[in-house]
Amino acid sequence: MGGDFAPANEVAGAVQALRESSNAFEVVLVGREHEIREHLQHQRADGLALSVVHAEEVIGMDDSPTAALKQKKNSSLAIGMTLHKEGKADGFASAGNTGAVLSAATLILGRVKGVSRPTIGAFFPSESGVCLVVDAGTNVDCRPQHLFEFAVMGSIYAKQIFKYENPKVGLLNVGEERVKGTEIVQEAYKLLEGSTLNFIGNVEGRDILKGKAQVVVCDGFVGNVVLKFGESVPTFLKSRLKQYASGNIFRSLLIALARGSLKNSLKDMDYEEFGGVPVLGVNGVTIIGHGKSTPKAIKNMIFKAVEVATSKLNTRIEEAMATSVSHAMKQTSPGEPSLTSASDYKR
Amino acid sequence: MGGDFAPANEVAGAVQALRESSNAFEVVLVGREHEIREHLQHQRADGLALSVVHAEEVIGMDDSPTAALKQKKNSSLAIGMTLHKEGKADGFASAGNTGAVLSAATLILGRVKGVSRPTIGAFFPSESGVCLVVDAGTNVDCRPQHLFEFAVMGSIYAKQIFKYENPKVGLLNVGEERVKGTEIVQEAYKLLEGSTLNFIGNVEGRDILKGKAQVVVCDGFVGNVVLKFGESVPTFLKSRLKQYASGNIFRSLLIALARGSLKNSLKDMDYEEFGGVPVLGVNGVTIIGHGKSTPKAIKNMIFKAVEVATSKLNTRIEEAMATSVSHAMKQTSPGEPSLTSASDYKR
Repeated sequence: MGGDFAPANEVAGAVQALRESSNAFEVVLVGREHEIREHLQHQRADGLALSVVHAEEVIGMDDSPTAALKQKKNSSLAIGMTLHKEGKADGFASAGNTGAVLSAATLILGRVKGVSRPTIGAFFPSESGVCLVVDAGTNVDCRPQHLFEFAVMGSIYAKQIFKYENPKVGLLNVGEERVKGTEIVQEAYKLLEGSTLNFIGNVEGRDILKGKAQVVVCDGFVGNVVLKFGESVPTFLKSRLKQYASGNIFRSLLIALARGSLKNSLKDMDYEEFGGVPVLGVNGVTIIGHGKSTPKAIKNMIFKAVEVATSKLNTRIEEAMATSVSHAMKQTSPGEPSLTSASDYKR
Repeated sequence: MGGDFAPANEVAGAVQALRESSNAFEVVLVGREHEIREHLQHQRADGLALSVVHAEEVIGMDDSPTAALKQKKNSSLAIGMTLHKEGKADGFASAGNTGAVLSAATLILGRVKGVSRPTIGAFFPSESGVCLVVDAGTNVDCRPQHLFEFAVMGSIYAKQIFKYENPKVGLLNVGEERVKGTEIVQEAYKLLEGSTLNFIGNVEGRDILKGKAQVVVCDGFVGNVVLKFGESVPTFLKSRLKQYASGNIFRSLLIALARGSLKNSLKDMDYEEFGGVPVLGVNGVTIIGHGKSTPKAIKNMIFKAVEVATSKLNTRIEEAMATSVSHAMKQTSPGEPSLTSASDYKR
C-alpha cells in the first residue's frame, strides 16, 4: 500500500507476474482488502495464485520510518513483513517508504550474523554487464568496516544472483592511487586488500558505466547521489533532443526515427527492468522498489523476490562474513572496537 | 608543459585563440622554448601576440603536487604562476597536474581574504543552463564552514561570469528534508540558511541535470565522483548505440543519421566547450583544464582566463566572504574555532 500508485500498480503487477510465470508461485497481497479486491476485479484475476491479507493502516512516504513502525502496528508493511518472518511468505516486496521498509526488515527479520549494517545496493548498466553499487543511500555515514561489509555482501549477491564467477570489487574513490580519498576510504582499502574478495583497488566515477568492476563500494551518501544522477540522464537526453529538434522538421524526423534505438540502448538505465533492489544483510528476502513503480516494475520486483528466495544468498553472506571478516580483522589494530554490536546499528 | 599533449595542443590552442580574437590579448607560452618555437613554426604563428618564456622543468601527472613544487623550481608551472603573481601576466592556465596547479595557485598567489580553502568547481549542463558543482574534487574532507565558503564563491562566480542575477544555491544531499544526510551536511544547511545567499535548500543527484539550482555545493569526494560519472555518459551511450546497431543495417543507418543530433544535444556535456575550470579563492586567475585537452579546449581555457581576469571576481568574493561569513557565523556557537588559519589548509 505504500507505493505512489498503490494498490493499483501493485495489483496489476502481481497479476502480470502470475500470468507470465503460469502461477509458478503464490502472491499474497497485503493491504486494505476492499480496495485490493476492487482492483483484482478490474484485472480479471480469477484462477491466479493470489490471496489477500487485510491491513488497515498505510505508512506513507513522509512518515518517519521508526516512528511509523511503532505507531502503525497494522500497516501493510508491518503485517507483510511479519508474515515473512513467520514463514507464511518466502519473501517481501514493497514500493513504499524505503527507510520504513529497511527498518522493518532490520527490526522484524533481524540481521544476518556478522553484519553490522544491512544495506541496499543499486544496479547500474555498464559496458560489461550489470554493476552493483552498494550502499545506495541507506548508510550515509560509514566506517571502514561498514564499507568492507558492503563489499562482502555485494560480492555474494553478484555471485549468487548475477552469476558472476569471481566478481571484481572496486572501492569508489577520487583516484586510483591507494592514498587518495578520505581516511575512511583509505582504511577500507586496507581491509579490502587483506580480504579474500576479488578486490581490484580504487575505481572512479567514470568506471561504473565502463564496467571496470561488478561491485562498486561506497557510502550511502555518494551512492545515492550518483544513483539519482544516473537516473536523471535519460530524461535530460530527451529534453536535449527535443530542444535540438524544435522547429526543424528534418531534425525532428531523424530523432523520431532514431527514438526506438535510443530507447532500446538506454533500456537498462531504466529502473523498471530491474524490479527493485534487495536489502542485503537481513534474515530474509526484502525487495524495495521505486515509489512510482509501474505494474511492470512491480512484476519484476516479484520475480526478483522469487529469485533471491530460491537462492542461498543469506547462507552465503553469513559464511562470507565469518571468513572474510576474521581475515580482514587481522589487518586492523587489536584495540579497535568491534562494530558488530547491536547498538552500533544507526540508520 | 604539463598536459598530456604538451606543448603541441597548448601552442595550437593559443594560436587559435589569438586568431579568433584578432590579437585582443597577449599569450605568454611558458615551457621548453625550443620545443615551443618548433610548434609555433608549424602553426605559422607570425604576427600573433605571442611570447615565450623558457622553463626547463616539467611537473608530470604522477608527481606529488607539493613535493614537485619544492623540487622543480624551474617548472613551467612555477615560472608561469610566478609571472602571474608578479603582474607580468593577468592570468594563468594549465592542462597539467591538477593538484600541483592548485598547490601552486594557493602557495604562490595566496588565498583571498576570508577563504580557508580554495576550491575548484565543475560545470554541468542542465535543462535550465549551466550548473556549477563546487567542490569537484579538491577537498575530499570538508567541514560545514568549508561547504559554506564553496557556496559563497560559487554563487559569486555564477553571478560574475555566468551572469545569473541571483543564482540559486542548492546543497547536495540524499533527500530534500533538512534532517537528511550526514551531520556535516546538516550543519552546512544551517549556515546556508542563515546566509544572504539565495539558498533553495537540499537538492538531490537528479536535480543537477534538471537545473534546479545554478550552484550545487558538496564535498570534493561526492563532486568528483558525480563529475567523472557524468563525463562517462557520452562514451557509454556511444558504446550502447553501437552494440544495438551491430549487425543490423537499418538500425546502423538510423543511428548514423541521428548521430549529429545526438552529438549536438550532448555538446555541453563536453569538457572542450567549457575550456577548463577556475580555481576559486586564490588571489589571481587560474584556469585548470583536462590533461587530454585538445587545441579547442586550450583555446577556450584561454578565453575563460581572459573573461575571469577582466571580471571583478576576486574583489566580489572577498566582499561576499566578509559579509556572508560574519552573518553565518552568528548562527554557530561562539566557541567554535575559526577555520581561516593557514594551518587549516589541507589538501
